[in-house]
Formats: sequence, C-alpha cells, structure tokens
Amino acid sequence: MKRQEIWIDEYYKDSRFGLRGKVLFKKTSKFQEIIILETEYYGRALMLDGCWMTSYRDEKYYHECLVHPALSSIEKKSNILIIGGGDGGTARECFKYSQVKNIDLVEIDKEVIEVSKTFLPEIGGNTWNDKRLSIHIEDGIKWVKTKKENYYDAIFIDCSDPSEFSNLLFSENFYNECKRILKQKGILAIQSESPESFKNIHIHILKSIKKIFAASKTMYSFVPVYPSGIWSWTFASNQELNFQNPICEEILKIEKSCDIWSLNYQNGAFKMMPNKIIKEIS
Amino acid sequence: MKRQEIWIDEYYKDSRFGLRGKVLFKKTSKFQEIIILETEYYGRALMLDGCWMTSYRDEKYYHECLVHPALSSIEKKSNILIIGGGDGGTARECFKYSQVKNIDLVEIDKEVIEVSKTFLPEIGGNTWNDKRLSIHIEDGIKWVKTKKENYYDAIFIDCSDPSEFSNLLFSENFYNECKRILKQKGILAIQSESPESFKNIHIHILKSIKKIFAASKTMYSFVPVYPSGIWSWTFASNQELNFQNPICEEILKIEKSCDIWSLNYQNGAFKMMPNKIIKEIS
Repeated sequence: MKRQEIWIDEYYKDSRFGLRGKVLFKKTSKFQEIIILETEYYGRALMLDGCWMTSYRDEKYYHECLVHPALSSIEKKSNILIIGGGDGGTARECFKYSQVKNIDLVEIDKEVIEVSKTFLPEIGGNTWNDKRLSIHIEDGIKWVKTKKENYYDAIFIDCSDPSEFSNLLFSENFYNECKRILKQKGILAIQSESPESFKNIHIHILKSIKKIFAASKTMYSFVPVYPSGIWSWTFASNQELNFQNPICEEILKIEKSCDIWSLNYQNGAFKMMPNKIIKEIS
Repeated sequence: MKRQEIWIDEYYKDSRFGLRGKVLFKKTSKFQEIIILETEYYGRALMLDGCWMTSYRDEKYYHECLVHPALSSIEKKSNILIIGGGDGGTARECFKYSQVKNIDLVEIDKEVIEVSKTFLPEIGGNTWNDKRLSIHIEDGIKWVKTKKENYYDAIFIDCSDPSEFSNLLFSENFYNECKRILKQKGILAIQSESPESFKNIHIHILKSIKKIFAASKTMYSFVPVYPSGIWSWTFASNQELNFQNPICEEILKIEKSCDIWSLNYQNGAFKMMPNKIIKEIS
C-alpha cells in the first residue's frame, strides 16, 4: 500500500465494499459527511455519509441509465428539472440533447456541488459553465411545490438512499407534485434503488409510481460501487410511455457517445426484473 | 460485532468486497485455500483462494443464468457434463429437467465437493444423492480428451477465474475439445467472467468461442458477491442457436421455481452488453 493510502468501506448489513486510495477532501457539511477519495483503478470517488455515490470508473453506468431512456423517448425536451445530481453527471448527459434549453438543478447541499466542481471535473466537466444550467441550493420538496402545473418536460430524481433529509423524496406526496408540474407528454425518471439490497423501498417506489402515473416502467442494470451492484431506474408519465420512438440522427449520435447505454441495451434492461421481485409485486 | 465474527475480504485491484461472519471451515487443499464463512445476511459463503465463489443469498443469480438459457433451448438433454461446479448448484438446476438421465460432474478438487456437501446443503441439496449424478475427481482438460465425439447434449464450464490450474479451461484447445464431444444439436454454456473487472479475459472468451463454434451468444446479469457485480455467461453451439423454442409446460414450471431467471429475463440479459464492450469487439 502506498504512503497515505487508506481503505474506506461502505457497510451494508454484513457486507462491505471498500476502495483504497488517498483522501483528497473530507468535511461534514450541514447535511452529511463528504469524502473524496483518489484511487488508482476506480479513479476519484465520492462518498456521502458512508455511502459511495459515484466514481470516475463507474459513474456512466448510473448517469447514462437515468437520463437516456427518458430523454430519448420524449419529443419535446427543452425544460428539465434535476433534483439532487450535485456531481453534475446527470446534467452532463442531458446537455447531449440539442433541444435542451434550461436545466434547473436543485441540490440541497451546496458543498456537494462545490466539492464536485473542484474534485470531480471528469464528471461535471463543462456542464458547470453551461449557461443553460441554473443551480438552486434548495430542498427539492419545497422546489416542486412552488412550480406551476404543466411546467417541465422531464424531471430527474437523482438523490441518495432514503435518509433523514431525503426520505420525503420517496413519498407519494412528492410523486404527486412531480406529476402536477410535469407536462402531459413529459417524463419522470427516478433512481429506484436496488431490488436486492433495498428491496422494500424499491417495491414501495414501483407501487407508488404505478398508483399515481398513467404509465411506468422499470429498468435494471449495474452500478459496481453500489450495494449488491444491481440498480434500478423507474420512468413514469401522464400518458402511455413509448420507448420505441422513431430513432433520429441525434439519438444515434448520443448512443455512440455512451459507454454503457444504447437503445438495445435499454430494451434488455427493461426485461431484467428478477423473478422474485415479479412474484412479490404481482 | 458478535464474538468470533471476522471480516473476510476479496481484493480486486484497489477495491475489496467483504463479508462478516464466523469461519466454519478453513483448509488449504492440494489446489487452493478453502473457507466457509457463516454470515447473517448472505448466509453461508464459500471462498476459494481469496475469491468469493458463492453464497446462499446470491447463488441463484449465478446458477440459474448458467443452466436455464442452455437447457431450455435444446430439445434433447439426457447426457450432461459439468466441469467444476463443485458446490452442486449447477447440477441442482439441471435436475429440474425430467429428461436429464446422466450428469458427469468433473471437479479437480475433491475437498470442494466434500466441503460443499457438509457445509452448503442449501446449494447442493438432494443433488448429491441423485443416482443420475456421477462425480469424477479429475482435471476437466483431461476428461474431455478421453470422451468420444458427439457425446454430450450440454456441457457447462462452471469454473473459477483463470489461475495456475484453471487457465487451460479458457483456451481455444479446450473449447475445440468441447466442440468435438458435443452433439450436433447440443449446447456449451460457459461462465464468461465480468466485462467490467475481467474485460480482457471476457473478450478473449467471446472471440475464441465465436471463432470455433457455428453460433454463440452472451448474456449479462448480476452476481452481487463477484468483483463489479456484473457477470456474463456465453452459450455456443455447432448449429444455429435458438432461444425462442416453443415453450413447453415443463419450462414454465421451471420458470416458476426460479428466483431470478425467466425466459423474459433471459431475453433482456442477451441485450445487456455494455456499449464499450460492443465497440471493443466489433
């Protein structure tokens, strides 16, 4: 082990996933403990309150699967809301679509954005300088309440696991507010946790969304640094969801820019609900 | 932490995945160090030479994905070869098909079988008492050389990662021998490693198999205790592979018995090659 390198582990029940590296930053903000670790293989990694949020090596597994199934499936995509997403990766993927005119990025913890700008430039990149990006340091729950009906083309819930200050982002009240401010042909995209490690909250999200929206669909894919490595993303709309839209040149170009996502990959990922989850929710 | 409980980690580059529990067994056999750990959440887990092989909690993610895409797609399935598979899980899934008359389980390390029989009864279960099972403590490489042409309906390569004594199981010579002893309408199923953590060997397997067999197809799914959590299984045949066979009652029954696998899941998993792997092999 090189000088100054330490192991930092995320603990989940009687398992742990650790990365070895050099701590570049460590501070407890108003909301959480923030750590940036520099590792050789995973690159830089962000930990919030003991949970790995993202790393250079695997962030695309997460961000591409949250953004592209949503934005490739809707026609109009000029006005976008991201709740959370303080590392900038979700906004970066959104800006690949030329139609995007405005992104409201609503992050509760301004330290996460500052740390990401300083220490994770490979994730946010030029996103932070893009004039179409408006950063709002605010509680996402409050933000959605203040917006008028029929406002956003797409809403991304890019938050951490349920905790004291993020719990309400998993509530039916919140999903109802999202529905209200979403345009009729708009789409809601949620990181819907792990069907393996967070089965109860995963099923809760799926059931709540199904009750509230006219249509919803969940896809399953991989995030190596998250507990169990199995993750899910749920998409919901006030009208029928159509993931087989005519494919335009721009989407083919975005496909080429991606490390993980493609339309074919997405079609597969929508079928990957483990049998035991199917049995439990049906 | 309870008395006598310890953390045991698998190290992969600058990451580690650990389980906490009580060591039930630890011994170095002629081939490898064998550990059985009893954990609360993952149940009992088997580690060979520092690598997690399986656990009660997640073994079905692995075994169902190795066996069912293969056996549900071929018509005749009476005579089966398993190379490795010393925990009994692969044989257990094979015995779900009433047509299976013989399984040759060829495992190099008899200690793995003995330890699995004693400490992992939930994986092997009644498999060990099934009269259709013949256990052969032998090197798989040697075994395939002694068999005549056109002999097995299905061959499963259920081995650990490449190492001094398993390297040859990833060689073209070995795949050629498998092809020779496989029936014309038979199928070869290989655990083909992680496209994320073992990218080079993964791509090597895919390219070798493609060169040797008339048809091949790779699926991607989850194994939480393996490095990166992303795993792959490759299926190959001397004739065109058809994973859309007419579905019989038996297969529907097997689907119901599974925690992870279903025909729909499998159809999705065949599309989940990450874009960066597609770019690299095309």
